[in-house]
Amino acid sequence: MSQRKNMLIAQSGGPTAVINASVVGAFHRAVTASDIHHIYGAYNGIVGVLKETFVDLKKQDRRTMDGIQYTPSSALGSCRYKLSSDFEHEDYRRIFDVFDAHKIGYFFYNGGNDSMDTAMKLNAYARKIGYDIKIIGIPKTIDNDLVGTDHCPGYGSAAKYINTSILESAFDCNTYTARTVVLIEVMGRHAGWLAASASLAAFEGERIVDLVYLPELPFDLDTFLSQVEEVYREKGKVFVAVSEGIRDKSGEFILAGQSQHDEFGHSQLGGVSLYLQEMVQANITKRVKVINPGILQRCAAHCASKTDLDEAYWIGYRAVDLALQGYTGFMAGIKRESNRPYKWSVELTALENVANKEKAVPREWIVPEGNYVTEECIEYMKPLIMGEVYVPAWEGLPRYVQLKKDFIPPKLEKWHDEKG
Amino acid sequence: MSQRKNMLIAQSGGPTAVINASVVGAFHRAVTASDIHHIYGAYNGIVGVLKETFVDLKKQDRRTMDGIQYTPSSALGSCRYKLSSDFEHEDYRRIFDVFDAHKIGYFFYNGGNDSMDTAMKLNAYARKIGYDIKIIGIPKTIDNDLVGTDHCPGYGSAAKYINTSILESAFDCNTYTARTVVLIEVMGRHAGWLAASASLAAFEGERIVDLVYLPELPFDLDTFLSQVEEVYREKGKVFVAVSEGIRDKSGEFILAGQSQHDEFGHSQLGGVSLYLQEMVQANITKRVKVINPGILQRCAAHCASKTDLDEAYWIGYRAVDLALQGYTGFMAGIKRESNRPYKWSVELTALENVANKEKAVPREWIVPEGNYVTEECIEYMKPLIMGEVYVPAWEGLPRYVQLKKDFIPPKLEKWHDEKG
Repeated sequence: MSQRKNMLIAQSGGPTAVINASVVGAFHRAVTASDIHHIYGAYNGIVGVLKETFVDLKKQDRRTMDGIQYTPSSALGSCRYKLSSDFEHEDYRRIFDVFDAHKIGYFFYNGGNDSMDTAMKLNAYARKIGYDIKIIGIPKTIDNDLVGTDHCPGYGSAAKYINTSILESAFDCNTYTARTVVLIEVMGRHAGWLAASASLAAFEGERIVDLVYLPELPFDLDTFLSQVEEVYREKGKVFVAVSEGIRDKSGEFILAGQSQHDEFGHSQLGGVSLYLQEMVQANITKRVKVINPGILQRCAAHCASKTDLDEAYWIGYRAVDLALQGYTGFMAGIKRESNRPYKWSVELTALENVANKEKAVPREWIVPEGNYVTEECIEYMKPLIMGEVYVPAWEGLPRYVQLKKDFIPPKLEKWHDEKG
Repeated sequence: MSQRKNMLIAQSGGPTAVINASVVGAFHRAVTASDIHHIYGAYNGIVGVLKETFVDLKKQDRRTMDGIQYTPSSALGSCRYKLSSDFEHEDYRRIFDVFDAHKIGYFFYNGGNDSMDTAMKLNAYARKIGYDIKIIGIPKTIDNDLVGTDHCPGYGSAAKYINTSILESAFDCNTYTARTVVLIEVMGRHAGWLAASASLAAFEGERIVDLVYLPELPFDLDTFLSQVEEVYREKGKVFVAVSEGIRDKSGEFILAGQSQHDEFGHSQLGGVSLYLQEMVQANITKRVKVINPGILQRCAAHCASKTDLDEAYWIGYRAVDLALQGYTGFMAGIKRESNRPYKWSVELTALENVANKEKAVPREWIVPEGNYVTEECIEYMKPLIMGEVYVPAWEGLPRYVQLKKDFIPPKLEKWHDEKG
């Protein structure tokens, strides 16, 4: 008779509006599984594994567990911590000591491509040392840049928020008769999926955003200014969406200020809209409005997409299903079955084919002039923002919840980083 | 037997999320009034009167007329056009020629203190020339700075949007263990009501925003930095709300860039958060996040307050009521009857007591240290963000509507500004 194992789930990388729906989905599948005993959540991703900061999800208030699916941003906290490529590194020994001490037989890591790198390495290390564990990656990222999945949970909600903001801003700007240029700066480090989504907002059949600039193509200021001016002359009002990640032809980011680098070597971006505002003001018109929603794009759960929320939930649910069937070393992705009606299923991709890779907007989905996306791209994005989520309210604000940080007693000595 | 007169309504000043609810309320009262014949809307405020660009609101599709109450930003357009203080100015003659040509006996102007100035002058001129017309001002402004009303329609929805954003941003920032300073820049030219509202957002009984800086008190950078640092040392995470309108002790706006002036002599503000970000980075920590929702604050109808929407509607409704009773030269304001339960009624204030005045946050509602508001102030603001508005959706986005610009045939020659 096989002994029941415990399950561990953790979250990593940047927040999304629906990331917790995946944890709830995984939890709902796991509580009914006879092979799974305890269901633990590690706080702050792999760092929480190293630190042994686990909560017992079955002991959480059940209403809170349900409520976190409407709550933005990782309920289990997050981290940006890269595992060494060298299996001799002490982190591996430590992580598997922790796994072993807590009889972890199932590990789910919910995150972007950096998280899939972590999951891949842990899976390979487990095989190497012969540790019996099933490891599945659960995708999430507003950037939509993971390979091995048609699109990423989190993307649709960010796109819905951005397009709602664009629609409302257009009503704001059209109130006045004055000619105006509006610039919206959209998140997306290297891939332009989120900026591309700005093409969705429409009113009475007409698209609101006139020009879209993605990081997939080199950005040329003169071309930009002449394209903006052309629309300005013709329509008087110009709505431009620009990715925070646009770069010039030598690959340098277009920034008003300086760039910095985070722990993964990513540049901390921002400010491109301010730079472009200055340029438009100097060359076309003083009336330039800048919209830079910043982190609101990834946490606006009050404006989440129902399609996105449901997908995040079911991907979590099915990830546990697949691990119970014996799969390991895969990411559970979304395969689009049809567009009208919109249908999808789960597909598995080996983690090594996902980790550290980035899926850009394909060149053929960008118009030849490089300043908009094609109808095919729009058809791809359209279903992902569909459906409304009505978050319960309390005193006029969304009633978000948080898990109780009742950590289970550690079984090992403190991790070296925390010691005296 | 008295001849039936026509009614004219127009909107002016900056948009709000619920400004059109007042037009719908006024329309709903007017259609049932036996004394009112045609119900006209002038496009782009008083400029639309000068230009004679009127639509017949009874001829609009009734579903659209209902739909505009959920649509942000003035459905009848807006303007920033100041009437001369000199009644000899040709604008007056022109406006009353237009009124007379269209048999306008009721005029409603929906706007802020500049709009009340316009309504006041027209009312005085009408008395001077003996023209029989009832003129009532219908307040709106996210700034909440009008006197003669407990608060202004538009304010509650802006406050709800800001606090929803603050709540969601807090979840975003708390995902990471890193110490962070978050700065949110809130609209409000001279009055700090909207920045003050940032004190509402709370989670599990604890306020999210630690420090609030209003334009009512001179801003001192050193004091600011030491107050931020104190919270930073104590809590590690600091959430600061700052009004775009803060000024130093000599009265100069705190700005990163240059200031400009619009037609009413108001400074076009922006950028204070960028300046403060630099200062915090230079003195406390590099990890500073800036949230600057800009115009989204005044147009986010998808996040409107039901209380605010209802008030905007009923103020419009009652304004027509009062004009029918013979009142003229007043603004229809809100009188708070009680806080728990929240109740209000309509009260009239003479336009000359409203026009060009600004109501600031009283000193006694700001804590002695100048960096937060009092419980009394919070109690005042709390009811105004209550209740959710579920905007009908279409293809994943709010289903906003616009009136058809079917202008009625002009009866006079073109206004000089449009000639030749």
